[in-house]
Amino acid sequence: MNGLEYLDRIAAALGKLPGIGRRSAERMAFRLAWEPDGVMRELGGALRDAQENVRLCSQCGSITTVAEVPCKLCTNPSRDASVVCVVQDPSDIVALERTGAYKGRYHALMGIISPMHGEGPGDLRLQALIQRVEKEGFQEVIMALGTDVESEATANYIAELLKAHAVRLTRLASGIPVGSGVMYSDAVTLSRAIKGRQTL
Amino acid sequence: MNGLEYLDRIAAALGKLPGIGRRSAERMAFRLAWEPDGVMRELGGALRDAQENVRLCSQCGSITTVAEVPCKLCTNPSRDASVVCVVQDPSDIVALERTGAYKGRYHALMGIISPMHGEGPGDLRLQALIQRVEKEGFQEVIMALGTDVESEATANYIAELLKAHAVRLTRLASGIPVGSGVMYSDAVTLSRAIKGRQTL
Repeated sequence: MNGLEYLDRIAAALGKLPGIGRRSAERMAFRLAWEPDGVMRELGGALRDAQENVRLCSQCGSITTVAEVPCKLCTNPSRDASVVCVVQDPSDIVALERTGAYKGRYHALMGIISPMHGEGPGDLRLQALIQRVEKEGFQEVIMALGTDVESEATANYIAELLKAHAVRLTRLASGIPVGSGVMYSDAVTLSRAIKGRQTL
Repeated sequence: MNGLEYLDRIAAALGKLPGIGRRSAERMAFRLAWEPDGVMRELGGALRDAQENVRLCSQCGSITTVAEVPCKLCTNPSRDASVVCVVQDPSDIVALERTGAYKGRYHALMGIISPMHGEGPGDLRLQALIQRVEKEGFQEVIMALGTDVESEATANYIAELLKAHAVRLTRLASGIPVGSGVMYSDAVTLSRAIKGRQTL
């Protein structure tokens, strides 16, 4: 292999990451080659350490370490074990934890139903969810999925699956984002906000 | 370290690459953690191999391998040894080689003079250029730098340095890009195109 072919391999891997086009990946690979003792070593080391230590929680699917499977979110006895929050990705758990407004369990689906991207119900952690609902006896399942068509279809699919179970199904409120105004909101968001209006 | 701290380290390294903001780097790190046996392994392997094998040519600064220092561009006897093309980065050499229109030697400066980014003449491979001009006896030095203010200042600085040497100094033509029209060109580009007009 010549030098450029080595960089092409880096670019090919980088190009698989979200939001990175072929040209950006090439520019990044060049930048890495430029400072062989700097960023390349740093990124290489970080990747190696993460590969050795980072795992997804076998129960909820959140980011954890080899030493903590199941993760703290699943084992912490001071968290509310009667409610589970269903999310698409581990990164959603991080976003929700940042709020400090939720103290229950989580369940990451690792995707959503997306026929366009070849992802069906079988690709998600749905069986694991049903099993947890049965075994852990949650009283409430909160759907914390997106508000796009595919996410809503996924939420409806799950609602159907859980119909037979004695569990309260809820979903996150949708409406005007904090800091925004009525005139900047689209019609669908506004009609959701009207439907979900709350007593002052 | 918890799982997220490992990802933060990956994100911090990725965030040093060109065009990658903090948020993109975080999203990329999450994506890497998601598929520990896929992209993370692939990128890690590609980085390790590149770190072991890729080097910058000691003479021209192009991307090469440990096994080929100086690089083929410097040692190939069928290339024109009487002309050297001065570029900013190794990636510029790749772009010029892709044209097939140039068959001489190269010299990458590894940057341009940019007081705003704390880069002075001492940070560039300028002494090496002077030494090569003296030792290799180039008859022509082609400035293949950008057309922004800093690149032009760098070209002028090099022209001043080479004044005492019996060498022809040229620079790449600037003008209307192929495929574009007069009305889409800015005034500075157009005035360059007029000044550099050629007999049909």
